[in-house]
Amino acid sequence: MTHQESGYFTEATSAEVVIARNARAQDERLKAVMDVITRKLHEAVKEIEPTEEEWFKAIMFLTNTGHMCNEWRQEFILLSDVLGVSMLVDAINNRKPSGASESTVLGPFHVADAPELPMGADICLDAKGEPMRVRGRILDTAGNPIASAKIDVWQANDEGFYDVQQKGIQPDFNLRGVFRSNPDGSYWFRGVKPKFYPIPDDGPVGKLLGALGRHPYRPAHLHYIVEAEGYDRLVTHIFDPDDPYITSDAVFGVKESLLAKFVPVSDPAEVATAGFDGPFLDVAFDFVLSRKG
Amino acid sequence: MTHQESGYFTEATSAEVVIARNARAQDERLKAVMDVITRKLHEAVKEIEPTEEEWFKAIMFLTNTGHMCNEWRQEFILLSDVLGVSMLVDAINNRKPSGASESTVLGPFHVADAPELPMGADICLDAKGEPMRVRGRILDTAGNPIASAKIDVWQANDEGFYDVQQKGIQPDFNLRGVFRSNPDGSYWFRGVKPKFYPIPDDGPVGKLLGALGRHPYRPAHLHYIVEAEGYDRLVTHIFDPDDPYITSDAVFGVKESLLAKFVPVSDPAEVATAGFDGPFLDVAFDFVLSRKG
Repeated sequence: MTHQESGYFTEATSAEVVIARNARAQDERLKAVMDVITRKLHEAVKEIEPTEEEWFKAIMFLTNTGHMCNEWRQEFILLSDVLGVSMLVDAINNRKPSGASESTVLGPFHVADAPELPMGADICLDAKGEPMRVRGRILDTAGNPIASAKIDVWQANDEGFYDVQQKGIQPDFNLRGVFRSNPDGSYWFRGVKPKFYPIPDDGPVGKLLGALGRHPYRPAHLHYIVEAEGYDRLVTHIFDPDDPYITSDAVFGVKESLLAKFVPVSDPAEVATAGFDGPFLDVAFDFVLSRKG
Repeated sequence: MTHQESGYFTEATSAEVVIARNARAQDERLKAVMDVITRKLHEAVKEIEPTEEEWFKAIMFLTNTGHMCNEWRQEFILLSDVLGVSMLVDAINNRKPSGASESTVLGPFHVADAPELPMGADICLDAKGEPMRVRGRILDTAGNPIASAKIDVWQANDEGFYDVQQKGIQPDFNLRGVFRSNPDGSYWFRGVKPKFYPIPDDGPVGKLLGALGRHPYRPAHLHYIVEAEGYDRLVTHIFDPDDPYITSDAVFGVKESLLAKFVPVSDPAEVATAGFDGPFLDVAFDFVLSRKG
């Protein structure tokens, strides 16, 4: 009787032995998923050849990561983020036809009930930061305008904090708003230049980043969810290409097509048109939605 | 500028982009380990193509597994066990020359300070269960006896519980003992026939086993640590080949070479020699140690 026939564990056949044991799983999808996870996990262990001490370090890393999770902190999502898994899952689930705007991760700071605001409104409620005008159009892949698209935006302030991270310091719904595109697809609003910020780095994932010689920062960005009937929902950011962390986002959220430009404007006529009382940054960015199905 | 040149994230280059980010890790081993983990993780995600809902289920499974861990419960080790990873790490770290006894997992029930007992002692302190004599020899790979080898044995009782799981019900150090091999390499002791038992299955890992159509049982076995100067430490079990779970150990600990035989003996002379007052099970098993280095 060979080891294969017996079904007993051997180093050579380890993954096959484990996978064969799952043959009676009722959920075919779960079975298929566990087959892949088991195979890749055993491939990784065979390539790494961990010592027993290293294996135990991995066990304790996962345990500590779990213990760090609570109602307001999700350390396993952070781990998924810094390993590029969150962005990969996002990419797989949001493949777009050529010409459509690319997606990026939603992040933990979206708020469902932000107020709908009139076009041109200033979402900065505490007048802190460098004034910024954001404008552009919502288009289909043929370049036609999409009217009445819902544009849900949110951003960190000039110190890198979202309102929900600074309750009582920032006004509620600071730097958030929902807009509807004009008949020509256009939109505009006012805000302040966002700043880079660190992901929470006081836990096991932050320690891992440190050990890997990596910083915990996300480059400055504005979040968008753009929705219009008959089109795929677009969850994305636009980024400041001059941010010091633009090529090293801790969570790999940056895509080349999502780089905006922050152009200083001081012409008094333009300042007046934009509704500011001094120089501002002008950010123009169009979004292209793909048709459903 | 291509995506590869920019270093920004794309679905196609996801693993390479993440691995490149770890280039400044100071610990070369950590860097190498994370390279493999990242590559295999991205391969798995690309093969599975999880929905965002499935990804979140995985996040919550890991979170719940972490939350199940405390001072006396290690759910991530259980996960490693049922995925065959613990046995694989054991195999990698305990490759033996031809002829040497094979290892298996230590398990969580070893106690460091079990008493050293005279040869033939009965390790069953509460007279519960089916009497069993265990005997054999400690040999080197050339078949020569190893004298004064330290033989540390422990086992579950006839209901499948270790003493440490039933403090106050079983006597302290029940079914544990340390023996020293005779000049001819021989050893013997008395115990009771062990019973199969479940790994803790009231947590996320038990739920996963259930969903995979798997039971949580380990077939009946006796644990051994055999140590002798100049030889590799051997951590292993011997198993009852007639156990109902012998081909389906929940943690994949069974190896063909570790199957013992439990032979019923009722001959009065043998019963007297073994020090019992009635029929017993005779288990003969030799261990072969490999030389260090």
